[in-house]
Amino acid sequence: MHSLIMKSQATPAFRPTVDTFRAGAKTLPRPHFASPEVFAEEQERIFANSWVLGGHQSQIPAAGDYIVQRVNGESLIVIRDKSGAIHGFFNVCRHRGTRLIEDQRGKCAAIQCPYHAWTYALDGKLIGAPHMDEVPEFNKADYSLHPVKLGIWEGFIFVNLSEAVTPLDKWFTPLAGKFSHWNLPNLQSAKRIEYDVRANWKLIFENYSECYHCPGVHPALSKISPYDSAENDLTEGPFLGGFMKINRGKSLTMSGNACALPVGSNGEPALATASPSAGGEGRTERVFYYSIFPNMLLSMHPDYVMVHQLWPQTPDRTLIHCDWFFHPDAAKRENFNPHDAVEFWDITNKQDWHVCELSQQGISSCAYQPGPYSSRESIPAAWDRYYLSIMK
Amino acid sequence: MHSLIMKSQATPAFRPTVDTFRAGAKTLPRPHFASPEVFAEEQERIFANSWVLGGHQSQIPAAGDYIVQRVNGESLIVIRDKSGAIHGFFNVCRHRGTRLIEDQRGKCAAIQCPYHAWTYALDGKLIGAPHMDEVPEFNKADYSLHPVKLGIWEGFIFVNLSEAVTPLDKWFTPLAGKFSHWNLPNLQSAKRIEYDVRANWKLIFENYSECYHCPGVHPALSKISPYDSAENDLTEGPFLGGFMKINRGKSLTMSGNACALPVGSNGEPALATASPSAGGEGRTERVFYYSIFPNMLLSMHPDYVMVHQLWPQTPDRTLIHCDWFFHPDAAKRENFNPHDAVEFWDITNKQDWHVCELSQQGISSCAYQPGPYSSRESIPAAWDRYYLSIMK
Amino acid sequence: MHSLIMKSQATPAFRPTVDTFRAGAKTLPRPHFASPEVFAEEQERIFANSWVLGGHQSQIPAAGDYIVQRVNGESLIVIRDKSGAIHGFFNVCRHRGTRLIEDQRGKCAAIQCPYHAWTYALDGKLIGAPHMDEVPEFNKADYSLHPVKLGIWEGFIFVNLSEAVTPLDKWFTPLAGKFSHWNLPNLQSAKRIEYDVRANWKLIFENYSECYHCPGVHPALSKISPYDSAENDLTEGPFLGGFMKINRGKSLTMSGNACALPVGSNGEPALATASPSAGGEGRTERVFYYSIFPNMLLSMHPDYVMVHQLWPQTPDRTLIHCDWFFHPDAAKRENFNPHDAVEFWDITNKQDWHVCELSQQGISSCAYQPGPYSSRESIPAAWDRYYLSIMK
Repeated sequence: MHSLIMKSQATPAFRPTVDTFRAGAKTLPRPHFASPEVFAEEQERIFANSWVLGGHQSQIPAAGDYIVQRVNGESLIVIRDKSGAIHGFFNVCRHRGTRLIEDQRGKCAAIQCPYHAWTYALDGKLIGAPHMDEVPEFNKADYSLHPVKLGIWEGFIFVNLSEAVTPLDKWFTPLAGKFSHWNLPNLQSAKRIEYDVRANWKLIFENYSECYHCPGVHPALSKISPYDSAENDLTEGPFLGGFMKINRGKSLTMSGNACALPVGSNGEPALATASPSAGGEGRTERVFYYSIFPNMLLSMHPDYVMVHQLWPQTPDRTLIHCDWFFHPDAAKRENFNPHDAVEFWDITNKQDWHVCELSQQGISSCAYQPGPYSSRESIPAAWDRYYLSIMK
Repeated sequence: MHSLIMKSQATPAFRPTVDTFRAGAKTLPRPHFASPEVFAEEQERIFANSWVLGGHQSQIPAAGDYIVQRVNGESLIVIRDKSGAIHGFFNVCRHRGTRLIEDQRGKCAAIQCPYHAWTYALDGKLIGAPHMDEVPEFNKADYSLHPVKLGIWEGFIFVNLSEAVTPLDKWFTPLAGKFSHWNLPNLQSAKRIEYDVRANWKLIFENYSECYHCPGVHPALSKISPYDSAENDLTEGPFLGGFMKINRGKSLTMSGNACALPVGSNGEPALATASPSAGGEGRTERVFYYSIFPNMLLSMHPDYVMVHQLWPQTPDRTLIHCDWFFHPDAAKRENFNPHDAVEFWDITNKQDWHVCELSQQGISSCAYQPGPYSSRESIPAAWDRYYLSIMK
Repeated sequence: MHSLIMKSQATPAFRPTVDTFRAGAKTLPRPHFASPEVFAEEQERIFANSWVLGGHQSQIPAAGDYIVQRVNGESLIVIRDKSGAIHGFFNVCRHRGTRLIEDQRGKCAAIQCPYHAWTYALDGKLIGAPHMDEVPEFNKADYSLHPVKLGIWEGFIFVNLSEAVTPLDKWFTPLAGKFSHWNLPNLQSAKRIEYDVRANWKLIFENYSECYHCPGVHPALSKISPYDSAENDLTEGPFLGGFMKINRGKSLTMSGNACALPVGSNGEPALATASPSAGGEGRTERVFYYSIFPNMLLSMHPDYVMVHQLWPQTPDRTLIHCDWFFHPDAAKRENFNPHDAVEFWDITNKQDWHVCELSQQGISSCAYQPGPYSSRESIPAAWDRYYLSIMK
């Protein structure tokens, strides 16, 4: 246990701040939730111009492994080449525009178009195009796959559709070193659940950012983690959040017990069990919730990390990919029971989506007016402020 | 039987008039059935500015009983408070806009938001809002539910979304006392069927307003009630209709027998059976059909009352709620067989919806031109005239 | 066999030409596949102003037999009258606009409206209209069904929604006598399959017009008919195509054997079997593929004829009716096995629709740019040129 505690003490990553609760803060006006025009503007200003989360490097460990992800209506191939580098390409053949890959994930030796068999190497270069040598002035080098900008932060893969881009490292400077305890680049994804939610994507962020709703909406969660225990250290800007307490000896699982080797473990055997003795300040008694603008929710538990990807579809519909990550050695241990965590959050997620859908319905009414945020909703209010600064 | 006949003779409610059949009347032009712009204008001019039927007071007999009804895209709560008064509210929380009630009907002690537990009394006043006392200048009195105008006519609940409203009593002045025989305020709803019809709402009215189609479309109905027996007394304006004859000793039921205590009965035992001796002028041998602009069809039979509510969804789609009402004492009698009436009209309704859907399909053609109404379609023509007077 | 070969030698119908492959030809820009505005313009300029295939005369052999076909959103009745003439009518009653016939095919003694029983003769004249004699100045002669222009070419029924029309014979002058070998007016339809394809209608034409895709997409077809054996004789304009070779002794069926009496047979017994001795120039070793702008694909095999009708629904959706036709005496012969051909092409069709759908998906991307046609895609390039000449 010592190493964990020392590590925690050594990093000054978490500095609780006074929440910037501003009296008079109100929810966003109706067009932000219901207008197709605002939605189109968001897609353009935000999703086509930001680093958006598309996956984790552990999901494509070997050469030829790929993920296909839609961003802003565009299907993108994220693929690892033989040198180990990860590339992003538009999923569109340069010949007649055919969709190249249909599966969401898979492995291939090269990218071959299913229509006329044009073939691209894993780095996107056109290496086969039957009969095109009969076409004067045709040059394979002119027909590589269209690339998309891609970067890795803490093991997570981000893509960016825009031309002029803030480098990924610079974008994440405010978070540099902050999450090193959790060993994020090395974690392994064990489970994904996809949700189709009939609510605006911003309602999902606003819901994630407060526990004012927990007593009524999440009775099981509230028993393990007191709804009023939140302490936030990121309270303005694109990255927001902090931690909530976990009752001593408990874990956010169906059984209430830790379900895996701690994610921050260095792999020493002693870390394989929950540690009630870690003290009130220990990470074993805290769950950290951060929202990463514009499409990532990062929930770090002692024994697992949960990540939501948000994919807005229409003003009133959002697809959500939820992944559960564990210590790379977790599966080797006897106590590994990922389903214990997955089921706990699957139930909790659905409770959240339901109230988000109810909000979407009510906000669509002509009677809706922006309502007053309570003192326990300072983070949703801060999220709204950042969002409006981008949209203004 | 005497009391019924005397009552009938005593009220001058029905004065048959010569139908105002106007040679040359034609059906409405295509945009009135197919244009999204016309539909939007109708929703604004008609449904957002009229008293529209939303239910019957017998459906919410006790304190806390509620109906949720959509009007013009708005979800409204119609609820009875502890004093017995009936209120209408927008179904939208004043905090973050959440839909408050999901069920179409139910009972509650107070209206509590499922998201953050803000709580409203049955009269709409905010009585609970956790942590909001920490918000400076927040005052519960400023956050009552948004009310909607509501009134009762003959026991039926009408709502009106507009600001400037003709009082309900004034609107219904032309019908004052006309339907007193049928005991409408005291009837009890026994059954509702909801229909989703792929036709413009006006086609439903036009279909209801003539029996020219009955020989081909309703063979069973035509055997009991001659298609050419209609006599109309309301032939211009928002309220239109009259009666058709029922063959002696018959009832509009599957069995052909009366299925319940007459709705106009004072409860004397002798009224519990059909009365072939009531004579040609008796209400036991007539069924009265009236259309109440813009969303009510009122069909008064000797033994039951059927009411259709029309809810336009799109130019080519209308939801219809059909309720069957009976004498409050009907259920106590041995002859009570509501299914006998419900099934008769469920079959007949579906026959009507089918031809309305066929009309919608044909009218969408570029080949459609307004066609000539026959001499037996004077009421549809009058309905069209009133509609056009509102839309011009 | 002699008569067949002589016939083939006698007609100068097929003159192979040098394909007009033009270096630099590229696929169409994205709006032609994705824009609702372009789609609306196509419907107006092309489908509302062209002779479009609607069926074959063998499908309505007797008086009162009808087909109902949608063209450009309009439902049309194609019906044979008692004199044997075939008429086209809008499927809309002249009274209140009701859809007259719901079935896609059937037989009737007269066309009677299901709503108010107005009745039309098979030549479209109004012959019954109850109670309309009570309407002053109403004259049945003014209310015949609205006709649509209709013509027959090689037994196929074409309709045209426009007022000013090139006569059908004149339109088909370039093909006069060209297909006489195949006995098209006398063939009998044995099977229809309807497909709902999530791709733009032009992708279907482009797919049909080349076999560059065959090695990868159609392994079974490629074994019977070499992908690079195409010789085209119609290489510019609204009618495009030519033939491909069939390997000696083979047929385009699941079994590889002929499945029916040759369609061009004069009925002599000797023609009832496949003839490997017919020689390299014989039609028994060729399959002819022609596209007839804007909605017909005509595929003539030795033993059957397959015809696709294309019905664009939206920019990204096309309904396809595929009919298989056989010699009128085919069903009398022992070797008649239409399923052998139908299954072969049903599998092949679905392989084509799949890659068309993948193209639709990829072309919708902002990364799509017109790509270079290969030397084996001269016919798709010619089809695009003709299409653009109409749309410019």
